[in-house]
Amino acid sequence: MARPWRVFIEWIGPGEACFRGIRRVYASLHTGLQEIDVVELEGVGKALVIDGKLQSSLSDEHWYHEALVHPVLLAHPCPRRVLVVGGGEGATVREVLKHRCTTRVVMVDIDAGMVETARTLLQEWHRGSFNDPRLDVVVVDGRMFLEMVRPGSFDAVVLDLVDPTEGGPAARLYTVEFYRLVYRALASPGVMVTQATSPTLTPHVFARIYAAVRTVFGDSTRAYVTYVRSYNGLWGFIAAGKAIDPLPDVNSVTRLIEERIEGQLRFYDQETHVWLTSLPKPVRSLLEEPVEPPTDSNPVFLPA
Amino acid sequence: MARPWRVFIEWIGPGEACFRGIRRVYASLHTGLQEIDVVELEGVGKALVIDGKLQSSLSDEHWYHEALVHPVLLAHPCPRRVLVVGGGEGATVREVLKHRCTTRVVMVDIDAGMVETARTLLQEWHRGSFNDPRLDVVVVDGRMFLEMVRPGSFDAVVLDLVDPTEGGPAARLYTVEFYRLVYRALASPGVMVTQATSPTLTPHVFARIYAAVRTVFGDSTRAYVTYVRSYNGLWGFIAAGKAIDPLPDVNSVTRLIEERIEGQLRFYDQETHVWLTSLPKPVRSLLEEPVEPPTDSNPVFLPA
Amino acid sequence: MARPWRVFIEWIGPGEACFRGIRRVYASLHTGLQEIDVVELEGVGKALVIDGKLQSSLSDEHWYHEALVHPVLLAHPCPRRVLVVGGGEGATVREVLKHRCTTRVVMVDIDAGMVETARTLLQEWHRGSFNDPRLDVVVVDGRMFLEMVRPGSFDAVVLDLVDPTEGGPAARLYTVEFYRLVYRALASPGVMVTQATSPTLTPHVFARIYAAVRTVFGDSTRAYVTYVRSYNGLWGFIAAGKAIDPLPDVNSVTRLIEERIEGQLRFYDQETHVWLTSLPKPVRSLLEEPVEPPTDSNPVFLPA
Amino acid sequence: MARPWRVFIEWIGPGEACFRGIRRVYASLHTGLQEIDVVELEGVGKALVIDGKLQSSLSDEHWYHEALVHPVLLAHPCPRRVLVVGGGEGATVREVLKHRCTTRVVMVDIDAGMVETARTLLQEWHRGSFNDPRLDVVVVDGRMFLEMVRPGSFDAVVLDLVDPTEGGPAARLYTVEFYRLVYRALASPGVMVTQATSPTLTPHVFARIYAAVRTVFGDSTRAYVTYVRSYNGLWGFIAAGKAIDPLPDVNSVTRLIEERIEGQLRFYDQETHVWLTSLPKPVRSLLEEPVEPPTDSNPVFLPA
Repeated sequence: MARPWRVFIEWIGPGEACFRGIRRVYASLHTGLQEIDVVELEGVGKALVIDGKLQSSLSDEHWYHEALVHPVLLAHPCPRRVLVVGGGEGATVREVLKHRCTTRVVMVDIDAGMVETARTLLQEWHRGSFNDPRLDVVVVDGRMFLEMVRPGSFDAVVLDLVDPTEGGPAARLYTVEFYRLVYRALASPGVMVTQATSPTLTPHVFARIYAAVRTVFGDSTRAYVTYVRSYNGLWGFIAAGKAIDPLPDVNSVTRLIEERIEGQLRFYDQETHVWLTSLPKPVRSLLEEPVEPPTDSNPVFLPA
Repeated sequence: MARPWRVFIEWIGPGEACFRGIRRVYASLHTGLQEIDVVELEGVGKALVIDGKLQSSLSDEHWYHEALVHPVLLAHPCPRRVLVVGGGEGATVREVLKHRCTTRVVMVDIDAGMVETARTLLQEWHRGSFNDPRLDVVVVDGRMFLEMVRPGSFDAVVLDLVDPTEGGPAARLYTVEFYRLVYRALASPGVMVTQATSPTLTPHVFARIYAAVRTVFGDSTRAYVTYVRSYNGLWGFIAAGKAIDPLPDVNSVTRLIEERIEGQLRFYDQETHVWLTSLPKPVRSLLEEPVEPPTDSNPVFLPA
Repeated sequence: MARPWRVFIEWIGPGEACFRGIRRVYASLHTGLQEIDVVELEGVGKALVIDGKLQSSLSDEHWYHEALVHPVLLAHPCPRRVLVVGGGEGATVREVLKHRCTTRVVMVDIDAGMVETARTLLQEWHRGSFNDPRLDVVVVDGRMFLEMVRPGSFDAVVLDLVDPTEGGPAARLYTVEFYRLVYRALASPGVMVTQATSPTLTPHVFARIYAAVRTVFGDSTRAYVTYVRSYNGLWGFIAAGKAIDPLPDVNSVTRLIEERIEGQLRFYDQETHVWLTSLPKPVRSLLEEPVEPPTDSNPVFLPA
Repeated sequence: MARPWRVFIEWIGPGEACFRGIRRVYASLHTGLQEIDVVELEGVGKALVIDGKLQSSLSDEHWYHEALVHPVLLAHPCPRRVLVVGGGEGATVREVLKHRCTTRVVMVDIDAGMVETARTLLQEWHRGSFNDPRLDVVVVDGRMFLEMVRPGSFDAVVLDLVDPTEGGPAARLYTVEFYRLVYRALASPGVMVTQATSPTLTPHVFARIYAAVRTVFGDSTRAYVTYVRSYNGLWGFIAAGKAIDPLPDVNSVTRLIEERIEGQLRFYDQETHVWLTSLPKPVRSLLEEPVEPPTDSNPVFLPA
């Protein structure tokens, strides 16, 4: 491809964006809820795009999915019952299912069309996880599921959501009220983690999500940061624990991986854990500034 | 700016790029050697662009310059004489001059026009450093300077160079032969550091620069990584020591900063040091693969 | 669509291009010979793209197809047998079939996949023309067809080809040798017309195609020019006659349309004909400059 | 320039634009009223950009300026006194001054900084016209000038304005009220012409400007169309006469040019005149649809 003629543009702000040539279109469809493109992009490979936001690409999805799942699951003594909200590609579930302790995974996604697309077109992501007998897929809004679920039902909750946007499906999944539902759904001890947008590209959004989780989980709230080339920057997570520290002791990571994880990891190990959980000073400063935690009546959105 | 009409495009590969609206053009000139733009960009602020590559922007130059300078200077017991090659903005020199030990800085840049532009248009970068009596600016090719200099002249060498490109001014400043000259110019103990492109955007270039330094400095060679939003990704450095470890002991960084640095740091501190020097697993794997160290006859270039 | 995230880029030269948001992807496939996208674009509507070049869009295909077909067919006393080379969308055939005189149309296209795609996805273009009993579609290389066909087989030849590109399927369909085959295939009187790229965006290509036709058809060669918004500029055609003027008398166009054309025209009429055939001075000057007519051994290509 | 790194984007609509590499920046400044860039662009050469809209480029400014000026001036028996509103580059004045009849030209531009920039940086456009003793440059808002001027002061009024945009300086120079002022300022016989945006890119704006002129000048209103590669499409003008037809007889153009114009024309001649004044059918249809003429209280703007 000498010069790209089909291009995917990821807008970072009104005057800032990254673009990548589209080498191939596997599918381009509207599920009724979301517009989905499965494409092959220059530089990052096969990728899933939802409503114009790149969700993950084959070349670096492990920098995201392994960072999202393993720290909190290893911090818990034995996360038998795990709830995944979102995570349409099936890669989050794939990582969760590597944990020998885990006997039951419920994946809740609002969009049946997304799940069906993943099953058929994103095999490289889920690698058959959708057929694992430990998994149940429930098609329902994540917020509604958490409102209905019995308290203490899960040892871990993993929030692998699209970014909050005005009018988008995830705006009510980043608020204090929502995290209260998560807290209620957790057993004790219990851990949760949410993707939290970028601490460098959308620092205010990241800081507000941290504040919301902290409002509910208090001092057990911890931010950590990976890098995702496809996302054009650093990417943040907020972990929190109910009656437990949500991150494992640094020095035990090698041992915990060996004891508790089945199969290979490509990204996460002890030194990577140190890197994920050591925050550069400007990110720490950001989290020290007072911000309003997002609530249902005052939610947080990506800048338009 | 509703929609950008002047745009700066940073190409990552033939089909991959990031673009930012140009809010203002401070200057756009050709020095005879290089094409220089000083502009204000959407998202990252005032920025220096040389031959179409963004060199640094006000919003995040500290993530780069503090990471480049402080680790190696703090690793040395007392870096009195420091050589800076490149670093036209004057920000590298600004950081070096914060070290109380340092009594003499020589800055070598091939382009008098660049230095003059920096003096007049990049005050926010150099902040008067060009007037510091400890500094001498020498306009000459960095390679030629190192060939002429007396062995053992410097306690530290900081290579703040433009990326190696085919036909560009820096192609011969990333080779085994060049690092031999750096080694010769260092006193014992002595430390050096070079910027090394991105371990994620141009991993092969990064790995080859590492291999070249290692060919000369052996086991004292250390890679570390920061993130620069303006560069659209992680950014790497290679440090090396002559008769010394080029990175300070992790637990001593807070103390060393307090004892030896005058003035405030905005980025670098002990936890940031941990983050810089812990490498995510894929970066470590990259450095373990065998690659050919670049030499004068087989140099390394950014992909066209 | 606030900001486009999928974009189609039409390159005019290495540093010049137009882009349009892709509102919808109807199909994106490779036929084995060509890469085909049927998409809905911002500004121009549903469009056919072959190998990254926009072939026609619903909003203005009549500015192209009516200009291509009607002048030469009306110049001929009765074009019973018409050969169309290319014209995959079926819109050229659609216009030809409006001529009451015409009893037989042969459409030759090299790409069966393109014809099949047109049948199913481009109904708005062909509007059922593929089912007209007067039409035969032959899947074969246009050059080969003309080499095999009996001399004098057609009253009119309409060349609705993709632009000539290095290594592309149409490079040998714009040469002196090819136009000799066209001449041979024509009855006497006979007319031909070819699309000829843009006289303003690729003036040298346009001038060379004119020179090639003129080498074979001599003084009966005539250039005329339309405008196609989707093509980002003026667009040229070269018409030529064998024992006949290839363009009708200006003052007879209204009468000829009434007598000989069945159905409505949206673009072509007598004043439009004046506009098409009056050339602005710079275009006339261009055609007066000596250029080498393209031959099989020295063909013409769009600039890469 | 292998790949452009500074790019000028001309937006046609929210999801449609053309971009061209910026080879050189001559100047980039804000006059207090407007943001002005004088740059060299890929494909079209040295160009003037005001507030992000390309005003003219060296490679094709004659397609615009000769088409704007000569038809109406040749339609008038002897245009001694000519008013030019806008036309900052000095190219409109340059063409007016070629008319032997013309003894006085008043150029009214709201922006002294624009005029000064033109004098020093756009010599290729004005070619010394600013020094012609027949010319007076008045820095004032064009609307205010026309309100103050004595009725019947000019034989011809040439409106070479920036496009009407919301909040822009020209919004009140495309309304019925404004054309009444133009009518009043004209002697009898008198002619006027205005640039009128693109009949194909912004057809509704073009049609409304036509309607406004027609409201004041009635049946003597005539639309004609050129093509400007730099503007990415066809470009329209509206001419009108007070007690005179605003366009010369087609068959007299060659003779009139010879008798009345001093110096060479590169674009305009008799055949070009035919081309300019023959409108393709869709443009004629557009002008037949009823639209509201823009007024001061209901003005016309380019789509945002």
